[in-house]
Amino acid sequence: MGDRFKEFTEFRHKMNERILAQDNKVIKRFFSIDTLTYQEGALNVKTKELLGLVASLVLRCDDCIAYHINKCKEAGVARDEMFEAMSVGLVVGGSIVIPHLRRAVAFLDEIETMETNGSSQELSEKN
Amino acid sequence: MGDRFKEFTEFRHKMNERILAQDNKVIKRFFSIDTLTYQEGALNVKTKELLGLVASLVLRCDDCIAYHINKCKEAGVARDEMFEAMSVGLVVGGSIVIPHLRRAVAFLDEIETMETNGSSQELSEKN
Amino acid sequence: MGDRFKEFTEFRHKMNERILAQDNKVIKRFFSIDTLTYQEGALNVKTKELLGLVASLVLRCDDCIAYHINKCKEAGVARDEMFEAMSVGLVVGGSIVIPHLRRAVAFLDEIETMETNGSSQELSEKN
Amino acid sequence: MGDRFKEFTEFRHKMNERILAQDNKVIKRFFSIDTLTYQEGALNVKTKELLGLVASLVLRCDDCIAYHINKCKEAGVARDEMFEAMSVGLVVGGSIVIPHLRRAVAFLDEIETMETNGSSQELSEKN
Amino acid sequence: MGDRFKEFTEFRHKMNERILAQDNKVIKRFFSIDTLTYQEGALNVKTKELLGLVASLVLRCDDCIAYHINKCKEAGVARDEMFEAMSVGLVVGGSIVIPHLRRAVAFLDEIETMETNGSSQELSEKN
Amino acid sequence: MGDRFKEFTEFRHKMNERILAQDNKVIKRFFSIDTLTYQEGALNVKTKELLGLVASLVLRCDDCIAYHINKCKEAGVARDEMFEAMSVGLVVGGSIVIPHLRRAVAFLDEIETMETNGSSQELSEKN
Repeated sequence: MGDRFKEFTEFRHKMNERILAQDNKVIKRFFSIDTLTYQEGALNVKTKELLGLVASLVLRCDDCIAYHINKCKEAGVARDEMFEAMSVGLVVGGSIVIPHLRRAVAFLDEIETMETNGSSQELSEKN
Repeated sequence: MGDRFKEFTEFRHKMNERILAQDNKVIKRFFSIDTLTYQEGALNVKTKELLGLVASLVLRCDDCIAYHINKCKEAGVARDEMFEAMSVGLVVGGSIVIPHLRRAVAFLDEIETMETNGSSQELSEKN
Repeated sequence: MGDRFKEFTEFRHKMNERILAQDNKVIKRFFSIDTLTYQEGALNVKTKELLGLVASLVLRCDDCIAYHINKCKEAGVARDEMFEAMSVGLVVGGSIVIPHLRRAVAFLDEIETMETNGSSQELSEKN
Repeated sequence: MGDRFKEFTEFRHKMNERILAQDNKVIKRFFSIDTLTYQEGALNVKTKELLGLVASLVLRCDDCIAYHINKCKEAGVARDEMFEAMSVGLVVGGSIVIPHLRRAVAFLDEIETMETNGSSQELSEKN
Repeated sequence: MGDRFKEFTEFRHKMNERILAQDNKVIKRFFSIDTLTYQEGALNVKTKELLGLVASLVLRCDDCIAYHINKCKEAGVARDEMFEAMSVGLVVGGSIVIPHLRRAVAFLDEIETMETNGSSQELSEKN
Repeated sequence: MGDRFKEFTEFRHKMNERILAQDNKVIKRFFSIDTLTYQEGALNVKTKELLGLVASLVLRCDDCIAYHINKCKEAGVARDEMFEAMSVGLVVGGSIVIPHLRRAVAFLDEIETMETNGSSQELSEKN
């Protein structure tokens, strides 16, 4: 079972609960828009998750990148499609993106290993 | 004929020539990778231009946004698809993106007006 | 009547209408959260507008800075308080902020001149 | 005793000493301006620390966020005021801020637990 | 006489005066550190101005880029050295830097034309 | 033997291999341009590595900063020159840079300790 994936998911769940437990209407509504953003519409989920991935890559947020890589996998994005999307992020964002690209690929490798080992069901439930 | 579009395109062409006239190998190769980035591959051109648009929006570069909006139009992206892609950019990048979103939509309106007026051929040649 | 202020306000209104005319639920909800964000709550409006100003300054968005300077004036923020808030933005964000600080102060001067000339009513209506 | 808080504070002190041990006039003066920035003036310390917090949040620097959360607590900022300031940072900076918001709230929880356990004196001395 | 250069320089001088006229100690000290930063030290002025140029390029501030291009010229940086420094900025910062690179080269062309026309004395006095 | 240095170098090598193993032409060419960027040209290697360091500092990427600090050491940049370059980054980028400056100096201390202990050969081979 992937350690980085597990740690990341658990912290994410725990802190989302802590944040939403505070009665702040703006933050609550923002979280609900965030969910709405990636739902099927004029564009399909796969395209929208790729958009989320590239936006996260050029803004260089490792957690956001990992989150969207996982969502892309769930939406059926293939490895070479993921790399092609990341190549757009690399060219637009520059070499400063490279360390994040390394961690992105390490994370992708980790969840692909989990899939191979039959942990894929657990994977999709955890998110 | 759209003024902002014309001015933007002419300056872009003129300065690209000036930049490439300087014999700098790194810059020249970068420009050639940049072109390669948006070509058909594992992902189609439409998806890649949408990725370029959202990356430009969250990094808040008006010229890059205008460039990719135009390329998206050429690739057949519909207005509601463009807005949906931009909604991802808005949520990921926050309200700081809004002034760029305004200019993006003003530019989109301008090139759609040009199309309606039959300037579309000129439009695609200029780029 | 201040030209930059007038032009900025008119473009803002016109494009907000164009954006909201498109039936995109995510963008519409985002705009409504944005309004909610600066309303009186645990913190007063003055403090929240100062927060918006400093966030805009360090992220270097001239339109956002101008918008919050105007809102700060409406909320009764004094000139030296505004400068002190901007000094926080300058130190956190660095010398790259300076050109935006220049335009911020030029805008502040412009709306203070409008006030002195008795255009203040028009000013608050326009926003 | 909070581990993240302790580790963060000790590294901060040790490295500030190392940096100032180097005889670089620009860096030394910058550090002294940085201290001056948050002192009582036209705005009170509480407001200035909230400005520092929101600037740090939209620029997404975890250490800076943690530093200003701690300073806000010392200046008497209540939890709901802190959340309201952070809601401004979230809306201005977008969903890319969320992972930092999670770590911010985890840090806030940690120092509030320390307070409850009577470690508050130690806390203020360490900074 | 170059229009962009003239307009930029005059606005810069006028607004620096307005900013320093406000009695804000933090801002005043920041401006004085900013000047100190580029003075001869362990590194020579030429190298320091190139550092300022690349920092401005990757942070994408047109005014800062123009300022440092002019300072680089005054410090004797040759055109190919300037391009090589900018190539570092382009690769680190990515294609999002390209529109700023275009305006940088347009500005460089403008001040080189001024030099050729014998306006160089005026140029150095204006800064 | 420096732990952070070792971990950083090994992860870097391993993931570069994983990234280049994927047959993505854009990414491969980008990596090869990245190498080309810092080679001797109109500017010497020392100056170019300092440019890379300052660009990395203002964009706040710890891995990139560590990489260029190591390259600067190899190119013969003295400690006070490195600090002077970093002072430019601090002033341009603001106090948000300070946590990265702390980690930069901690890394510099680590590799200088390695040199003193005679691990310098191993150091240059590892990169």
